[in-house]
Amino acid sequence: MILIGERINGMFKDIREAIQVKNAGPIEDWARKQAEAGAHYLDISTGPATPAEEQPEVLRWMVETAQGAVDLPCCLDSVNPDAIKAGLAAHRGKAIINSTSADQDRMDMLLPLAAEYQAAIIGLSMNEQGVPKDANDRLALAMEIVANADAHGLSTADLYIDPLVLPVNVAQEDVIEVFETLRQVKLLASPPPLTVVGLSNVSQRCPDRPLINRTFLVMAMACGLDAAILDVNDEPLLDAAATAGILLNREVYCDSYLKVFRKR
Amino acid sequence: MILIGERINGMFKDIREAIQVKNAGPIEDWARKQAEAGAHYLDISTGPATPAEEQPEVLRWMVETAQGAVDLPCCLDSVNPDAIKAGLAAHRGKAIINSTSADQDRMDMLLPLAAEYQAAIIGLSMNEQGVPKDANDRLALAMEIVANADAHGLSTADLYIDPLVLPVNVAQEDVIEVFETLRQVKLLASPPPLTVVGLSNVSQRCPDRPLINRTFLVMAMACGLDAAILDVNDEPLLDAAATAGILLNREVYCDSYLKVFRKR
Repeated sequence: MILIGERINGMFKDIREAIQVKNAGPIEDWARKQAEAGAHYLDISTGPATPAEEQPEVLRWMVETAQGAVDLPCCLDSVNPDAIKAGLAAHRGKAIINSTSADQDRMDMLLPLAAEYQAAIIGLSMNEQGVPKDANDRLALAMEIVANADAHGLSTADLYIDPLVLPVNVAQEDVIEVFETLRQVKLLASPPPLTVVGLSNVSQRCPDRPLINRTFLVMAMACGLDAAILDVNDEPLLDAAATAGILLNREVYCDSYLKVFRKR
Repeated sequence: MILIGERINGMFKDIREAIQVKNAGPIEDWARKQAEAGAHYLDISTGPATPAEEQPEVLRWMVETAQGAVDLPCCLDSVNPDAIKAGLAAHRGKAIINSTSADQDRMDMLLPLAAEYQAAIIGLSMNEQGVPKDANDRLALAMEIVANADAHGLSTADLYIDPLVLPVNVAQEDVIEVFETLRQVKLLASPPPLTVVGLSNVSQRCPDRPLINRTFLVMAMACGLDAAILDVNDEPLLDAAATAGILLNREVYCDSYLKVFRKR
């Protein structure tokens, strides 16, 4: 399971305040804390409070600050292609671009950036009309992204499809469509695209969020999920992910598998 | 999710001792305790300590004792067809026979009993050669049971296929075969057979058994699992099952869904 730590994001108050006064401390702290918990990537987002014209410079600074503290690659999270480009230019190692939709103009901007910087990229199964209701329409958009990525010379092994899970309390019937999309995405190309979700979406405004998050995560893993943007410091969540990895025979069982999982 | 409470079984010391001295108390207590926790069926087993010739009378007594305490149907759990028959004769409501294998002589004894007493029956995807390694061979045995059940006039809606999960610490590669079997069993007949597992098997002799049990359960539910024989008094396990039921849109979401689940 590829764990992408969600915490360095201007949506969180401490990071938003750190950005405003260019205080590296909270970004470095969360980089270390997530690395120790087992993150493989750090998601980096300015959040919406940063003005668009400042986002490239802020994202560049955040990437350099995080990678100054730990030796981890980043998932560059912005709707602003200029910010993505500035982040990629400053990034050390193989980044993930988060994200393109299936809109042609977005793909035409972001897929060449992925190719130029040899980055992976997340493709959202949505377009200007929104998120489709059912698995077939999500898969049709995923196939658009697969075809466009191929046209830009990207390997499907560097493409993550995000089927976009919506909150279960408002779009309950969508979750099984997400599970079905996860299963069928693997049939779209060879090598198959990877799959990713932004985990916390599923439980927005629900009580018992950690329970919903970890239950959804392991069910999605049973359907083929490869990666998630999540709270890597949620210990029961990581224990559940480790156990699912054992049950799916992705990791070799040993009695101390929970400890081993954190160290990989 | 159909919850079959595992606790009235001579494998547990208190039940074994209750059987030896014909003390109804522990059986009545566990019947009530499991009913309150949300069990839909009570599994009833003498366990192996009861001599074969005494099993019919003991199972009859256990069924009458449990059904004297609570208004729940039972899952009659014995390898002894005479004990199954005695339990069925004493049983009120629609029982589940637990179980037949795919061996012709077992099916020829047990399927007519299911038809005679209008009981449901669990069919294990194994035969005298043991449990097959892969999903295809498990499905071939499941299909044998489906065909034989049909020949005895049983509806596939009254047939539960158990793909037989083995302990993850000794047969780790089998778990994904069980998941695949659960998915494909639904394609064998219309109406599709139901599916069931004996949950605690997966974690035999592992540390962190409750974590492995609840992770396996919800992953199996994502693959189509309908029922499980389990510890209904394990609250985190039932919370996980309730959450998986919500995510699969089998139950209508409400903020208090955990409480609602226990009362169904």
